[in-house]
Amino acid sequence: MESFEQKLSAGVAGAMVLARSVFEVLARDTADPGGGVTRASYGEGEQHAHRLLAQAARELDLEVKSDAGGNLYMTLPGRDRTAPAWFVGSHLDSVPKGGNYDGAAGVIAGLVAISALQRSAIKLPRDITVMGVRAEETGSWFSGAHGGHLGSRMALGLIRADEFDNAIRVDTGRSLGEHMKECGFDPDGVRGKPPYIDPRRVKGYFELHIEQGPVLEHRGLAVGVVTSIRGNSRLRNARCLGAYNHGGATPQELRQDAVIATAQLISEVDRKWSEVDAAGRDLVFTFGKLSTDPKVHSLSKVPGEVSFSLDLRSGEPEVLAMMREFVPAKADEIAAGRNVRFELGAFSVSEPTVLDKELRRDLHAGCKALGLPTIDMASGGGHDAQDFVKAGVPAAMIFVRNAHGSHVKEESMTMEDFEAGTRLLAWQLARDES
Amino acid sequence: MESFEQKLSAGVAGAMVLARSVFEVLARDTADPGGGVTRASYGEGEQHAHRLLAQAARELDLEVKSDAGGNLYMTLPGRDRTAPAWFVGSHLDSVPKGGNYDGAAGVIAGLVAISALQRSAIKLPRDITVMGVRAEETGSWFSGAHGGHLGSRMALGLIRADEFDNAIRVDTGRSLGEHMKECGFDPDGVRGKPPYIDPRRVKGYFELHIEQGPVLEHRGLAVGVVTSIRGNSRLRNARCLGAYNHGGATPQELRQDAVIATAQLISEVDRKWSEVDAAGRDLVFTFGKLSTDPKVHSLSKVPGEVSFSLDLRSGEPEVLAMMREFVPAKADEIAAGRNVRFELGAFSVSEPTVLDKELRRDLHAGCKALGLPTIDMASGGGHDAQDFVKAGVPAAMIFVRNAHGSHVKEESMTMEDFEAGTRLLAWQLARDES
Repeated sequence: MESFEQKLSAGVAGAMVLARSVFEVLARDTADPGGGVTRASYGEGEQHAHRLLAQAARELDLEVKSDAGGNLYMTLPGRDRTAPAWFVGSHLDSVPKGGNYDGAAGVIAGLVAISALQRSAIKLPRDITVMGVRAEETGSWFSGAHGGHLGSRMALGLIRADEFDNAIRVDTGRSLGEHMKECGFDPDGVRGKPPYIDPRRVKGYFELHIEQGPVLEHRGLAVGVVTSIRGNSRLRNARCLGAYNHGGATPQELRQDAVIATAQLISEVDRKWSEVDAAGRDLVFTFGKLSTDPKVHSLSKVPGEVSFSLDLRSGEPEVLAMMREFVPAKADEIAAGRNVRFELGAFSVSEPTVLDKELRRDLHAGCKALGLPTIDMASGGGHDAQDFVKAGVPAAMIFVRNAHGSHVKEESMTMEDFEAGTRLLAWQLARDES
Repeated sequence: MESFEQKLSAGVAGAMVLARSVFEVLARDTADPGGGVTRASYGEGEQHAHRLLAQAARELDLEVKSDAGGNLYMTLPGRDRTAPAWFVGSHLDSVPKGGNYDGAAGVIAGLVAISALQRSAIKLPRDITVMGVRAEETGSWFSGAHGGHLGSRMALGLIRADEFDNAIRVDTGRSLGEHMKECGFDPDGVRGKPPYIDPRRVKGYFELHIEQGPVLEHRGLAVGVVTSIRGNSRLRNARCLGAYNHGGATPQELRQDAVIATAQLISEVDRKWSEVDAAGRDLVFTFGKLSTDPKVHSLSKVPGEVSFSLDLRSGEPEVLAMMREFVPAKADEIAAGRNVRFELGAFSVSEPTVLDKELRRDLHAGCKALGLPTIDMASGGGHDAQDFVKAGVPAAMIFVRNAHGSHVKEESMTMEDFEAGTRLLAWQLARDES
């Protein structure tokens, strides 16, 4: 007799025709002449993606709705319409000249999972709603004082009233509110109104997403279970100040060399990372910008100033807190020894989001049942799942292997890996019935 | 009875009126409206300085001549006009908005020493020629394919025929040859002609110069004896190439981080310097320019490229040779460990100039006789003395304490320190008679 997992896997395999077709049409219709795809938040590409996905949902006989902010909800009714529903979602916008899978894969996975359940004639006790989220790539599309993730924050009642005017599309100079109206939506239907999603009516939120980093590729795994979305602590405009001097005539011990001092700080943070990593804790760090002053520096002058940035990320709040102590203390020590001064400025703090332990345990159980090797891993980038957690909804994420990084047109995911991730998603949604 | 040293010191003290007056007029007449003094090589300020010094020399009844390149020779005849002469010299040009003492102090010291000898009625066995050298600050004034130190190299027959056309004044765009003619000199009187100075007719060359670094200031000494003029080995356009990646999603161990690798190289060169210094060898190093790529870098992206410069300087050729081995070997080691690539390019090599041992020994003897505490020290900057050494003339240098670095208007030398240095110079010139 066919097992539950075999039935489900056959259903997902059968629904892959749908996946391939939607991915293909989406890539073709939102192709950027400069390469990759462009689906601007509250712009042409995103609008088209929403139309396309809604049409696919209707062909699956799902209930299709949208909220005043333009988020799309595609629901397979369960036996008990009043039971808290499973939500499956991700965003349908993209960065300019980005990849076809970042965001869209999570929405299409939801539809494929539903189609698999329909094909397998598995009837569920509760609704499953696939959500196409608006405006997640706000870092690329909106400047001004806004809190990011505009679509999910509208849906969950997390957006502030002023963000509709303050968020400005970088390419048009017009506000979020204006762009929403242009797309047929209604800022005033969101602003000050109860949120479209009542968190108490959601049993859990799942988001399948391509991994933004190289871990799964490196480990030879199709899927990963996300433990947390890393928070960050950042120094945007740190400086080391020494003194400019004759590079030939100033003895080493009388120098106030900002480059040597900064190099030492970088090496010390690297050493600290080794300790943290050896202790099994989560941390990555990036000195992404580093420069002597091009207006003053020269080959033969002792460098009197270096400016740099530091981005610390961790899924563990206490690791970030520890590093916020370590870096200034170490900088002080180096400054005293090398007769320079560090002006680090204050660390910005964005706390990590820890995903739901039970749902993560369930996903591991699913991987085991389906014979899918997997690992726990932190997410480096932000995701709509954060906002569901913030609103009190248990949330979990499935990462799918991606060969060439995200936010680039070279982003790459095989249909086999997507199918594996979607099997896991479908298993999780159907497990009430297993 | 008055000792030789007392007589000499009284003579120098008496001649300091001349020093103060020439320094003052020179500073006033060549003041730059933007601060400091500007005496362009083969330009207005240098011309004026030469006229002023020649006039002072005539007032001392010296023989005043100039060569076809415009170098100035002011000679106190000795008893035997055919004996090889002492030369005392330095340059009379300055960097733009520079200090009044860099260069000029050495020429004025020569005149003051001669005046002191005249006042002390010390008659010498050989000529003493004070030389006002042209165009030493060529790094500031001339671009194009030239060998620097244009004045001394013309006088000593070291200049190439093509340099008169190739050296281009950076502020006017006109050639060295044109500027020489404009000042009343004759490139064709230099090009291909026997040099004005016959090295066999020079017993030795002395150059008094402000120290460009802070060593004497730091050690509380008025004068230093220069052992060598540091050579250098330079990497002008070195790069470290890694890979740009997502700064949140790429685990540390999978990164190809050009910043961390370069920081490690800098720290390793610093560690090597400690070894070299502890062994009593001469070395300074400067990573003067360091930068991630501003067109690509960002706070949250793993830095895939760093460009940097390295200037190694030493008075010892073998130390430079050793460092030219060490740096690429260490870079290779780091590159292998961190999965990056260093493109260092080839080291430029400018060999150190070792000054004359006997003359240095004599200067130390003079310091002892005059009760002047001193130290041996390397010169970080280049000087006309190098060219005399290259032409086969024994040369030595006296450094005078300078509080605020050279090539800046803040350059500072007290008249007391200048007097001490000039006493030492006069002692050295007169010691044939002591």
